[in-house]
Amino acid sequence: MSDTTVQFEKLALIGIGLIGSSIARAARQHGVVKEIVCAARTADTRRVALELGVVDEAYENVADAVKDADLVILCTPVGTYGALTEEMAPFLTKGALVTDVGSVKQTVVEAIEPHIPEGVDFVAGHPVAGTEKSGPAAGFAELFAGRWCILTPSGKSREEAVEKLSAFWTALGSNVEKMDPKHHDLVLAITSHVPHLIAYNIVGTADDLEEVTQSEVIKYSAGGFRDFTRIAASDPTMWRDVFLHNKEAVLEMLGRFSEDLTALQRAIRWGDGDALFQMFSRTRDIRKQIIDAGQETAEPDFGRTVPNEDE
Amino acid sequence: MSDTTVQFEKLALIGIGLIGSSIARAARQHGVVKEIVCAARTADTRRVALELGVVDEAYENVADAVKDADLVILCTPVGTYGALTEEMAPFLTKGALVTDVGSVKQTVVEAIEPHIPEGVDFVAGHPVAGTEKSGPAAGFAELFAGRWCILTPSGKSREEAVEKLSAFWTALGSNVEKMDPKHHDLVLAITSHVPHLIAYNIVGTADDLEEVTQSEVIKYSAGGFRDFTRIAASDPTMWRDVFLHNKEAVLEMLGRFSEDLTALQRAIRWGDGDALFQMFSRTRDIRKQIIDAGQETAEPDFGRTVPNEDE
Repeated sequence: MSDTTVQFEKLALIGIGLIGSSIARAARQHGVVKEIVCAARTADTRRVALELGVVDEAYENVADAVKDADLVILCTPVGTYGALTEEMAPFLTKGALVTDVGSVKQTVVEAIEPHIPEGVDFVAGHPVAGTEKSGPAAGFAELFAGRWCILTPSGKSREEAVEKLSAFWTALGSNVEKMDPKHHDLVLAITSHVPHLIAYNIVGTADDLEEVTQSEVIKYSAGGFRDFTRIAASDPTMWRDVFLHNKEAVLEMLGRFSEDLTALQRAIRWGDGDALFQMFSRTRDIRKQIIDAGQETAEPDFGRTVPNEDE
Repeated sequence: MSDTTVQFEKLALIGIGLIGSSIARAARQHGVVKEIVCAARTADTRRVALELGVVDEAYENVADAVKDADLVILCTPVGTYGALTEEMAPFLTKGALVTDVGSVKQTVVEAIEPHIPEGVDFVAGHPVAGTEKSGPAAGFAELFAGRWCILTPSGKSREEAVEKLSAFWTALGSNVEKMDPKHHDLVLAITSHVPHLIAYNIVGTADDLEEVTQSEVIKYSAGGFRDFTRIAASDPTMWRDVFLHNKEAVLEMLGRFSEDLTALQRAIRWGDGDALFQMFSRTRDIRKQIIDAGQETAEPDFGRTVPNEDE
C-alpha cells in the first residue's frame, strides 16, 4: 500500500478499541510494522479483533502481548496506565519503545515513567483524533491522516526514541508536534475536555427536564442540540478518566467558560443587544481558520446528509 | 417536479437569506406557488436573489412585495417583525395569509398580530431547520425535508388558515406540529437557543486565552472544539434577536444548565469518578433516539470527510 520502510518488527497494542484498532489498520496499510498483537481483557474483544484481521494475535495478559515487541502502545483509558505498565515491565524487551495515546499527559507521564525498566524507552503521545464510536470494529486506517499527534517527551525521554515515535506517526499520516506535558493538558482542556464536558452536560440537562418531554427534545434537535449529542456519545470510561486525570487544567478552563457564560447571561437579562451581537460576530472567523487549516470540512452542516424517514 | 396542486398564487418573502431562499427553491420545486417575489433592503441581496433565479421579482420595499400576494412569509431576524408588519399592513390583500419563520414565538405573535388588518390571516410558524451559512446563495430546496415545522396559532388564528399553512409546509417536505407559543419557546430554548449560546461562549472563551495560542486552538480543534464552531458561525443578527426575544425561557434553561455544570465541576474537583461515569453513560441513548427519529445521520463523526491538506 505504501513504500514506507518497516520501522518496527512487532507492535503490541494494549487495548484494541477505536484508537488501538485504527493504529493497527493504519500501521498495516502503511507497512510500518511486521507483526501486530494486542492485549484485551474481554474474550469478546479479542475475538472481534482477530475476526476483523486487525491483529495477528490477541492475548488476555499484557505480559504475553509485549513479549519481543519493539513498540508497545497503551490504548486503554488513562486511569489504567500505571498498573498496566507495572504489570508489563518485567516482560518488556530491551530496546523496546513504550508510548501511549492518552488525552492527558502530565499525570500519565508520572504514572508510567517510574515503572519503565532500564534499557526501555518511554515517550508519551496523544493523537488528536477520534469519533464518538468505541470498540475494535469502529476503527479505520484513515483516522489519523491530516490530524495532529502531540508527543510530550519528559526529561528522561531519549531524543532518538522521540524521533522514532515521530517517524511512526508521520508514516500513519499525522502531523507531529512536541509539547511540554503540562502545556498539552491546558491546550486539550479547552480544545477537547471542556467541550466534551459541556456537551455531556447539556444532554443531561435536556434529559432531566419535566416541562419539555424527551420526545420533543428528539424531534426538534435539528435546531442545534443534536450537534452536542455526537461528542456526548463518546466512551464514558475514557472520559471519566480524562477528567479525573486533568483536574487542574479542566477546572481552570471551566472557570473561564462559566465566567464568560455569566457575562452573556447578564447581557440577555439586561437586553444588551450590542454586547450579544459583538460576541456572536467574532466567532465565525475561528471556524474559517479551522477549515483553512484542513481540520474541518467546509461543507455546510458538516456535509451531513440526513436520512428522511418519510421519503 | 411534483404533482402537488398549486396552493398559492403569489408568495412574498420578506427577507431572502438562508431560510427565505430555501423556501423559494422548495416551493418552486414542489410546484406549490405560481409566482415568488421578495423584499430585501440591500441592493446586492436583491441582485443575487434574481441572478440565482429563486424569485421572479425583488423589491426594496415590503409594500411593493406584498401587493396581490396571498402568502406572505417574514424571513428576517425576529426583532424586525413588528415594524415590518406595521409597514406592510396597509398593502396586504384581503384573504392573504401572513406567517413567519422566527425561532421565537410568544413575543413574535405579540409583535405581529396587532398590526394584522381585518380580513387577513396570521399564523406564526417555525421551521426547525438551518445551517451555519447565511444569505440567498446558502439556501437549498431540501432544507426542510424530514424536518419539523412548528405552527403556533394564537387564539385569533382561524382553523382554516392553520390548515392552509400546514399543507404548505407539508408540501415542502416538513412534518408539521402545532404548539402553544409559550411552550414552543421553552422547547426551543433547550433544543436550540442554549446550545447556540454555549457554542458561541466556548469559542469566545478559547479566543480570549492568553496561555493557549489561537493557532493551538485551531490545530487541535479535532478533539471536540471544532464541533462547536459550526453553530457558533451562525448569523449574529438573527441570534442576537433570538436571545433578546426569548429571554425568560433562555434564562430558565441556562440556569439549569449552569446548575448541572456546577455539579459536574464539583465531581471533578472531588474526584468522584462514579458520578462522572454515571452522567457520561446516560447520554448515548439520546443520540441513538435522534438517529432513529431520522433527525441525524448515523455515520460516525457526522460522516464528515476532512480534507487532508498534506495529501
